[in-house]
Amino acid sequence: MGKKILVAHGGGPTAVINCSLQGVVEAARASGKVDKIYAARFGAEGILKGDLLDLTNVPAETIAKLRHTPASAIGSCRRKLSEADYPTVLETLKRFEIDCFFYNGGNDSMDTCHKVNELAKKEGLDLRVIGIPKTMDNDLDITDHCPGFGSAARYAALSAAELALDASGLPIHVVVLELMGRNAGWVTAAAAMAARLTDCEVLTYLPETPVDEDKMLAGIERHYAKGRGLLVAVSEGVRGLDGKPLADTGMVDGFGHTIPGGAAQHVADQIIQKLGIKSRAEKPGLLGRASIPYVSIPDREEAYAVGKFALEAALRDESGYMAAIAAERSPVYRSSLFLAPLADVANVEKKFPVEWIVDGNQIAEPFFQYALPLMGGDFPEYALLRK
Amino acid sequence: MGKKILVAHGGGPTAVINCSLQGVVEAARASGKVDKIYAARFGAEGILKGDLLDLTNVPAETIAKLRHTPASAIGSCRRKLSEADYPTVLETLKRFEIDCFFYNGGNDSMDTCHKVNELAKKEGLDLRVIGIPKTMDNDLDITDHCPGFGSAARYAALSAAELALDASGLPIHVVVLELMGRNAGWVTAAAAMAARLTDCEVLTYLPETPVDEDKMLAGIERHYAKGRGLLVAVSEGVRGLDGKPLADTGMVDGFGHTIPGGAAQHVADQIIQKLGIKSRAEKPGLLGRASIPYVSIPDREEAYAVGKFALEAALRDESGYMAAIAAERSPVYRSSLFLAPLADVANVEKKFPVEWIVDGNQIAEPFFQYALPLMGGDFPEYALLRK
Repeated sequence: MGKKILVAHGGGPTAVINCSLQGVVEAARASGKVDKIYAARFGAEGILKGDLLDLTNVPAETIAKLRHTPASAIGSCRRKLSEADYPTVLETLKRFEIDCFFYNGGNDSMDTCHKVNELAKKEGLDLRVIGIPKTMDNDLDITDHCPGFGSAARYAALSAAELALDASGLPIHVVVLELMGRNAGWVTAAAAMAARLTDCEVLTYLPETPVDEDKMLAGIERHYAKGRGLLVAVSEGVRGLDGKPLADTGMVDGFGHTIPGGAAQHVADQIIQKLGIKSRAEKPGLLGRASIPYVSIPDREEAYAVGKFALEAALRDESGYMAAIAAERSPVYRSSLFLAPLADVANVEKKFPVEWIVDGNQIAEPFFQYALPLMGGDFPEYALLRK
Repeated sequence: MGKKILVAHGGGPTAVINCSLQGVVEAARASGKVDKIYAARFGAEGILKGDLLDLTNVPAETIAKLRHTPASAIGSCRRKLSEADYPTVLETLKRFEIDCFFYNGGNDSMDTCHKVNELAKKEGLDLRVIGIPKTMDNDLDITDHCPGFGSAARYAALSAAELALDASGLPIHVVVLELMGRNAGWVTAAAAMAARLTDCEVLTYLPETPVDEDKMLAGIERHYAKGRGLLVAVSEGVRGLDGKPLADTGMVDGFGHTIPGGAAQHVADQIIQKLGIKSRAEKPGLLGRASIPYVSIPDREEAYAVGKFALEAALRDESGYMAAIAAERSPVYRSSLFLAPLADVANVEKKFPVEWIVDGNQIAEPFFQYALPLMGGDFPEYALLRK
């Protein structure tokens, strides 16, 4: 008898989340040891309802399309499981005779994964549980970086460069770009690449350092006065000196977190009103995690690899781990995979190192050494004839 | 003695405006008849100041990079020339002994081009003037379509599809996408492609038909209730029944036009407040005209071709024309170029045919027959496993 496996997605997707699913499915098929491949329809919701998709006989050419399919191809949700939900989760796992359970998500999902594993052990269930990391925010600990981050960072870097060139080629306004990241500034920091790719001034404001708005406006005025065009990148979660987001949507998510948003529009309004300089705010928002044309190739490959690695670990009877990435950056970038105990990664948030933020709005060299290979490295050289 | 040529950009750039510049420069070099290639630094501003870039000896490999360089590589401006400016323009043309003048822009720029040509004739100046069309809005008349539109439409179609999948894969909110286009809905209409590429409901609101907000909200509620996820695409210039933009920035541009903006956030706020449904607004804004990874290949090729065609026409002593595109769509797409009198295109705005807007929020088949080949045609097939 072959194994029965279940894959579920938790929380917001990344541009490469489906590549991890592809890695699990193709490795399961290649193993010859799996005879049922289930996926939870809409994540935890699907597990609780027993609403599973049977992917066992989905044609290989459809599975191959997961490579360039944005969002979650099997559906996800933001429901945080409560203590009362866990018996239902185990019930579904028993009913479908699941041998290996893979939960693909961020901090909250790794916590879920850990609890399912502990509960299964306690109840004597013959279950292997492996977490597959995924977050565009890059805020998972222990792993060098998280699949999904490289693509989100590449999106931030390239779109910041494109907007910077628009701003310096038609210098009529300061362009303010809002990027995702409520608590961690990893993605917004990548926008600083625009200063290296273009002839434009770039300022970045991350959630890790509280922003003195008067000082920020003074900096914007000074850099704008250089006449080279100015791009300001702000994280959606950027905070003022009072610790509150500069702007929020007034909504709360399923985990009880306030949903920030509108930071760029807020900054643009301030630039217009207080500095008398034209400004416009751009907020690609979810495109920063859904855009396929900006995907980083190494990120895509690693997302696939962690899925495959998780499947193979479970078939070796490993359980209670997350597939994690180790990386060397010298002499060339090389990554490898290892198993990190779920207990160590659950609910721990990896913050952007504050020492990489210089003068409140510049990003230090170590960040680029860290992030460049993850973003794919192959950045375009532009023809800047007007210099 | 070879010819001296001058190229200038007017107004907002497109993702392929530099390909037209590349076409002019490479054709000029190939002709063997041009010995000076100038470009106006920051468009009309550069012409008025006599601030010209000399591109004559720029290496071929730098010119080749124009292909993937966003925004205007030589700089542009939004200054509308007044009657008092024209003598200064002619002064610059005389001072640099310009034989051929190429102005790359939209309606306003074609008007400028026309006036320069008329004035030069009146003053007996030996000058050839050719307009090169460019506008992401596709609102230039006579030409079948405008270089820059295909890429902006591809951006709209693919990013709408990516957001639609995000909305249907994690169905916690209605996503409202704002796209550029103050008066013409061509680009926003392309977002309707998302309904063909995904399993999601898509509603589009264009500036050509005034929006009854109550009816719009009722439609949003009804389509959201189908539970397949809902993407609402609104043009930045979408108007209410009173003819005013649903939202504007309170700013006025150099041509005296009110700058609309914030329509998506306005609609999202209404969805939250009046329908009690979660919603988020995304506004990639200038990325819709600056994004290189979403460029349409046929658009890029045609942008190059019109530049080359304009140069060759001027060297044949043609003057007072815009390089225009004719297209056949059956049995396969084929385009060819012709010269359209500047007097016929100046200041005429091509509107989106209102008969292509069905029920106020759907786009009819003829639009897709028209626009699909311009967007490149090669759209991805996604793996929608959760269906």
